[in-house]
Amino acid sequence: MAQLINRKSASVQQSISAITTIYPHLSQLKKLPIIYNNQLDTTVPIISGGGSGHEPAHFGYVGNGMLTAAICGDIFIPPHAEEILEAIRFVHKGNGVFIIVKNFEADIKEFAKAFKAARKEGITIKYIVSHDDISVETSNFQVRHRGVAGTLLLHKILGEAAKRGANLDELEQMALSLSTSIATLGVATKPATIPGEDKKLFSLENDEISFGIGIHGEPGYRTTKFISSEHLANELVNKLRMRLKWKDGDDYILLINNLGGTSKLEELVFTNDVLQLLELEGLHLKFIKTGHLITSLDMSGLSITLCKVKDEKWVDYLESPTDAFAW
Amino acid sequence: MAQLINRKSASVQQSISAITTIYPHLSQLKKLPIIYNNQLDTTVPIISGGGSGHEPAHFGYVGNGMLTAAICGDIFIPPHAEEILEAIRFVHKGNGVFIIVKNFEADIKEFAKAFKAARKEGITIKYIVSHDDISVETSNFQVRHRGVAGTLLLHKILGEAAKRGANLDELEQMALSLSTSIATLGVATKPATIPGEDKKLFSLENDEISFGIGIHGEPGYRTTKFISSEHLANELVNKLRMRLKWKDGDDYILLINNLGGTSKLEELVFTNDVLQLLELEGLHLKFIKTGHLITSLDMSGLSITLCKVKDEKWVDYLESPTDAFAW
Repeated sequence: MAQLINRKSASVQQSISAITTIYPHLSQLKKLPIIYNNQLDTTVPIISGGGSGHEPAHFGYVGNGMLTAAICGDIFIPPHAEEILEAIRFVHKGNGVFIIVKNFEADIKEFAKAFKAARKEGITIKYIVSHDDISVETSNFQVRHRGVAGTLLLHKILGEAAKRGANLDELEQMALSLSTSIATLGVATKPATIPGEDKKLFSLENDEISFGIGIHGEPGYRTTKFISSEHLANELVNKLRMRLKWKDGDDYILLINNLGGTSKLEELVFTNDVLQLLELEGLHLKFIKTGHLITSLDMSGLSITLCKVKDEKWVDYLESPTDAFAW
Repeated sequence: MAQLINRKSASVQQSISAITTIYPHLSQLKKLPIIYNNQLDTTVPIISGGGSGHEPAHFGYVGNGMLTAAICGDIFIPPHAEEILEAIRFVHKGNGVFIIVKNFEADIKEFAKAFKAARKEGITIKYIVSHDDISVETSNFQVRHRGVAGTLLLHKILGEAAKRGANLDELEQMALSLSTSIATLGVATKPATIPGEDKKLFSLENDEISFGIGIHGEPGYRTTKFISSEHLANELVNKLRMRLKWKDGDDYILLINNLGGTSKLEELVFTNDVLQLLELEGLHLKFIKTGHLITSLDMSGLSITLCKVKDEKWVDYLESPTDAFAW
């Protein structure tokens, strides 16, 4: 299939040019792959970043009440430590910087380097490593519990908290409480195509699905024949229940993420199946969002994110308006 | 590729169940495929509808300042006249009903039948047939100038006008002025898959693109090798210029529609190319929107919609807030 790009190496900059033209509150820092909210408003800025290919993440979440800035790497490659450091220096106003990192080995390496350098310059850094993916069960820490769609709950809730004046320590406390309450599990029906290369990152037969696939095409935990959306929803909800151990009447937040190429009709049919199962479970869903939230290029697939509401403020913060264009 | 549904015949009702659960302002009329804004607010209601498979159209555009109701047909099949009539009866408050119909032969047949029956019951009906697609040049009226993504501008602008008190005649005048100002042209890189059938609606070689493809997989006007997003944007913008005959300094509205399966990265790279070309042309873009606006299941492809701003109010109405979830 033709990929609607020019050169792969220019794609990230071209996507940045598009969004900074369309949205007046977004600007690019110098010629760096850094997008920031030019109506800076919080005492403690919050930044995030990661590889590209996951659009609208993360630049779609820059705005009032969400991220102050996002740093974009190349496709499926984290940004360089120097770029992260530049972003930290730029947003810092003397009250420290809070940073949200997804749990991938390569990402953590670059972010850790940048934190070390920033601290040497006297900038206080606090951070959270998001690790909501519960699909990988047996491997070592570095590949398991990747940061996926649940990361967006951190962006929105912490972003709104910062807007309302939370300091660095308060953000860290909230982030820890949140990150241990979120679980995500996904499924793929078609691998992603790397732009300009027309090759697939893994292979699936025509009627197969892969459970627990990562947002970079990492292998899932099981490949099986597809039966129906209901069967699929049932397997995923059961696994999430075992992890989250919810009780009848618990309050939860639900995200259904379209990984890229799945039709909106399928997304809604699957969402309906998940909603019905969670109603049977007796959960009270206090906030629901579906859509292309954090994609993996044109991969087809969906993920479910559930977060137990430990604090009523979380729901309030999720519902607060933002001009981040992807929320 | 596995399609994440249960039964094809149940998909539309299941998608309706999902959205009425998620969005409190949306309700289903009886057990009919009709979604309405349960916070009815306009003197003159505006309704639209068409085949399913184009989600989030049209139910994603039901809300304050947009549609009062949407009627969903089966996948790629228009709703029945009886269902359209039920919707008209339900929303009617004595001041007439304004209806937006996409220019497809089958749609027009069903809507015309419903209009006739409604008028017999004493309900005043005015309507607009949206026909923004400029891709088919030589065939007869019934297949050319299909109603595609530009239809959404009618939904939003007329919806806001109705909210601000426009009467039926004023809506008709505005609709006529709008519908002759809008042009859309699209391209596909991968055909759609009909759910549960796993068959493609047309065929394309791996590196081919098809210009002017319809939202139901109707044949395009030319199939060619893909060169680059810039080349593609250039061809489409040239064709739009020939149709719209713009002048340096003209004010325009721009929509870039993702037909379903194209990655967000490609969508933004292509958008950037279109923005650069339109800047060279000297157009002033007063409103820009990109995304999955009206899809064709999982078809990969993009379309450009341009609308000349003949009335400053149009831009104001587009920018006004709505709770329609897809806007």
